[in-house]
Parts: sequence; C-alpha cells; structure tokens
Amino acid sequence: MKIIVDAMGGDNAPLEVVKGSYLAAKEYDIEILLVGDKDKIEDVIKGNNLYSDKIEIVHTTEIITNNDSPTLAIRRKKDSSLVVGMKLLKEKKGDAFISAGSTGAILAGGLFIVGRIEGIDRAALSPVLPGKNNYFMLIDSGANADCKAENILEFGIMGEIYSKKVLKKQTPTIGLVNIGSEEEKGNAFTKECFKVLKESNLNFKGNIEAREIPDGNIDVVLCDGFTGNVILKLFEGVAGTIFDILKEEITSSTISKIGGLILKPVFKRFKKKFDYTEYGGAILLGVDGTVIKAHGSSNSKAIKNAIKQAMLCVNGNIVEDIKNEVRRYKS
Amino acid sequence: MKIIVDAMGGDNAPLEVVKGSYLAAKEYDIEILLVGDKDKIEDVIKGNNLYSDKIEIVHTTEIITNNDSPTLAIRRKKDSSLVVGMKLLKEKKGDAFISAGSTGAILAGGLFIVGRIEGIDRAALSPVLPGKNNYFMLIDSGANADCKAENILEFGIMGEIYSKKVLKKQTPTIGLVNIGSEEEKGNAFTKECFKVLKESNLNFKGNIEAREIPDGNIDVVLCDGFTGNVILKLFEGVAGTIFDILKEEITSSTISKIGGLILKPVFKRFKKKFDYTEYGGAILLGVDGTVIKAHGSSNSKAIKNAIKQAMLCVNGNIVEDIKNEVRRYKS
Repeated sequence: MKIIVDAMGGDNAPLEVVKGSYLAAKEYDIEILLVGDKDKIEDVIKGNNLYSDKIEIVHTTEIITNNDSPTLAIRRKKDSSLVVGMKLLKEKKGDAFISAGSTGAILAGGLFIVGRIEGIDRAALSPVLPGKNNYFMLIDSGANADCKAENILEFGIMGEIYSKKVLKKQTPTIGLVNIGSEEEKGNAFTKECFKVLKESNLNFKGNIEAREIPDGNIDVVLCDGFTGNVILKLFEGVAGTIFDILKEEITSSTISKIGGLILKPVFKRFKKKFDYTEYGGAILLGVDGTVIKAHGSSNSKAIKNAIKQAMLCVNGNIVEDIKNEVRRYKS
Repeated sequence: MKIIVDAMGGDNAPLEVVKGSYLAAKEYDIEILLVGDKDKIEDVIKGNNLYSDKIEIVHTTEIITNNDSPTLAIRRKKDSSLVVGMKLLKEKKGDAFISAGSTGAILAGGLFIVGRIEGIDRAALSPVLPGKNNYFMLIDSGANADCKAENILEFGIMGEIYSKKVLKKQTPTIGLVNIGSEEEKGNAFTKECFKVLKESNLNFKGNIEAREIPDGNIDVVLCDGFTGNVILKLFEGVAGTIFDILKEEITSSTISKIGGLILKPVFKRFKKKFDYTEYGGAILLGVDGTVIKAHGSSNSKAIKNAIKQAMLCVNGNIVEDIKNEVRRYKS
C-alpha cells in the first residue's frame, strides 16, 4: 500500500509531517510518497535522522496556503504539493491522500481533481470526535453550507459504511441534529431530513439535541455543513475556554498550584481522551478516492494516526463500498 | 412596580419560585403577583416562613407542562398560571411577567396573548450567556427555527437596546454567527444577513465563528433560532460533559481526591463564573411587554435574579425603546 502525503500542508509542515510519515513507515507495512519541496524535506530528514527506504519524495515548487482562494489555487498552483498529490491519487499512483493544509483547497481538490463518486451529489467532511461514552462521526462538518435532505441521506449511508468498516461498529446508530426530540420539531430542512431518514434502511434513531452530542451515544451525527461546522468549532471553543479559565484560576495561588500539580495526571488523561489526534483526521466522504484532512495544527503523532486511518480506509474498501451502496440505493 | 410571577412553572415550582419571589420582595422596592394554586403557594409560604405584604396571590387551577402542545395549551388551559399571568401583563395589571415553565408555551403566549410589537415580524428568545472575557446575548436562541435576513436585523436592533439599557454596555458590538470570518463565507441565509447588517446603523463587527463565541468579545451574537438553539444546548452539553469526566477522574483515586479538595475553591469560582442564574433568564424580545423565561431548573436565586432583570427592563423602558427604534427603522 502506498500513501500520498502532502508534506507542505499544515501549521507544522514540513517538520511534523515528515516526522509522522517516518513514524508510520517504520511501524506499518506501507510506502509513503511525500509530496513537497525536496530540499526542505531532505533537510528535515537529515536534521532529524529520519531516513527510510519506504519514503519517496515527489518534488513540487508551490504551496497552497489558507490565504489562497481554494478554487483559484487548485486551478492556478499546478505545481503545489496539494494539487500534485491529489493528481497522483487520481492516477492511482497511491492508495490514499493526506493533507493538513487548507480545508477549502482540499475540498476543492477533492471535487475537481479526484472527483465525486457517481451517484453522490455532495462530498462531506467527516471527522471522528471524542464523546463521553464513545467517539462518533459528525457529518457534514463544513463542506456544504447549504444542503438538501437527499444529501443528508447520502451522508448517512457513507457514515454508516465508515463506522462499520473503519471504526468497527457493528450496527452504527444514526441521528439527526435537531432542536427537539420529536419528529415535528426543527426547521423546514430538518423536518424534510427526518422524513427521508425515517424511510431509509439506516439504523435511524431520530433527532439528537445538541446537548446530547458530546455524550457520544449516537455513532453518526448528521447535519448540514453549516450546523456541523458551528458544532465542531463550538466544541473546540467551549472546551478551550474552560481549560483556559481553569488554568488561570489554578495558577493564581500557590495552594491551587499544588492542587493542580496533584491533578496533573487527571488533566493529562482527560486531555488524551479529548485528543483529536488519536482519531486521525477528517475523511472527505463521497470523493472517488481516500482523501483525509488532518488538523491544521497536526503534530507527528496526528499525521501518523491519519496515515493509519488511511490504511484502514483502503483495507476496508470504503470507496468501493460507498459506490456499491449508492448504486443499490439509487436503483 | 409590580412583577407577575408564574408560581407553577419550572422543575422546582412552586417552592423555589415562591422563595425567589420572597427574596426579591424583601430586597427590592417592588410588589409581586404570584399566579398559581393558592393552597400550594400558601403551604410553601407557611412551611418556609415566607410571609410578605408585598406578595399577592392570584389563584389559578391549571398548569401547562412541557408535555403539553404549546399552542393548544395556551388556547385550552385558560385557567393556567401561564395564561392568566400573561393576560394580567396584557391588561397592564403588572409591569413584567416571569416564568420558568415550558419555553414553547411562553413563546406561544408571548405571541398570542401579549402580542408582538408593531413592526416586529418575529419575537426572539434572548438569553445572556457567560463568556470568558464578558457576558453576551445570543439572539435568537430558539424561538424561530426558520428566519429571514430582515428578522436578524430586528434581533440586532432589539439586542442593541437591551445591551445598552439593561447590560449597560455603551456601544454594544454585534456579530453574525458564521462558518468563516470573510463576508462571502457561509450559507445563502448568512450571506443575505451579512448584507442587511452591514447596511444597517448597528455596530456590526462582521462574522463570528463558533470557536470565538465563548470568548464573549461580541456583545450581541445573532443567528437564526435553529443555530442559536444548537449553540445554547451544545454550550451546556460540552461544559457538562467536561465536568462529568473531570469529576469521575478526580474521584477515581485518593490522591486525586486530595487534589480535587484543594482545588474546590477554584472549581467553585469557575462554576459561579459560568452560572447562568447570575444573569437572570432569557428575555423574549419583540413582544409588547416584558416577558422573561427563567431556566427550567431555576432555584430561588435564579428566580430572584430574573425578577431583578425584569425590573431593569421596566426601568430601562426596553419595550418602548424597541417600539420607537423600529418605527424609526421602518420609516
């Protein structure tokens, strides 16, 4: 298996990306195509003693940043690590593509270079998030600000397959984000979604209120990309704020500092539990290839875990399964 | 000033409601009309020695619960504490109405009994939430699952007045919940809202991403009621989950229990900072009277603070100010 990695994407590229790729190459039975500036990548390899005969470099001269307009960048920066990497995926020179770069550019590249699966109307950004009782998927978490109910059904179908094959959940539960538990609750869009999901073959458990999302009792949480993005970012925002304030309070006196010191392992365990890097990146479900968006601030561990996630997707035949399932649904 | 209080609404009614009313009557220069089952209210007064000549009881025989269909309940349960209380407000027998009862019924009663302000298309549920740097308003947090851009403008106008008059913010900042900071980001609805807000006289600061909402740097956070309800409930959900897990971890060993004991004042201060009861309830902006929805699980302190909030609204002439401002905008 060969995984294509965008060496130049993310806040800590290329250092952490190269490190993570090296760790993955060492631990797993895979080859890695590192796409990016050859000199810079080799500097990192030399400087950190990361030599591996399982890593190959594909030299590129351009980088797409968060300041670039995604669609323009995809069209114009032909020799960027992201565009070249995605083209390699399209040409089957590798089995999966990973980038910690611009979300917008990964979406645009996924649609325009890799292309959508036939029968899928919208591709969806689908991260796995840590919940209190279990981890869960949030689909769509930002690819489609406006959606139709049929898109939500597609998201459900794809999420179910991913949950089964990669997250190893036997009968994943599916829920619809809504502002009440009863069928008739919500806005015009969610009411329509409820109907469509209820009539489907999915293991649909009805509406899920935002208060219950962090429990992690629903495996696949469905919503439009606007709502999903708000949820994803508020998750980060509220958790970050709570820890900022606690930290401030704890360091405000000697006695509380001692308390904080004693509870260090507790906070550490907690942090690990809520560590997104444990779960890899967000897969872009619906495109004709395995494309994974790693968190922008990914460290080497996050990159390594995203590579592992890509391997599970390839081994699980996610893309083929989605193709078959969509064919069955649409026929 | 006379405040009408629904004695039967909320999880802890009538006990905590009567207690809170007593505390407010004792502390502030007001009279209170307690609407509800006379026998039950008098039992609470007797049992807890809450006698006050500033509290008058209006006897009612029915109660609207969360299980009732809001609009049906408003129409049919004519002798419920909520319906009678709102009618008293409408008839100017009191200056404001407070209930910790069913949100849906309060909304329905606000619209059908108290009535909308002329020129206001939609009334909005507008809680004040604790942020890291400051408290802020979230409008609409659930009254209107579907909105138009013009409604968002109305919410902004009303929120600005409330922030100035009740929260004493001189020049409140206004933000639009969106999934990117740039003007062109978002869904069809937020793009339209951005235009309308930008052209208004409001102190509009542009889009605010969900990650930044808990900072509290924007005084009035605007969104449709679906998004607002998701935000409100996820706030509660994430915070609750974090504290549940921390508690579990802290009580898991003797040493961490000691750490927890030392940090008790820290957690207490934190809890106070994030205590919704400090800020009263959520005002229903846009109806022709001061209607406040207190949290369903309100204790006496929350009720007392909601009464104080009602007093500030009445003294601040919120309803009249909204009427004038809307007239000016629409002319």
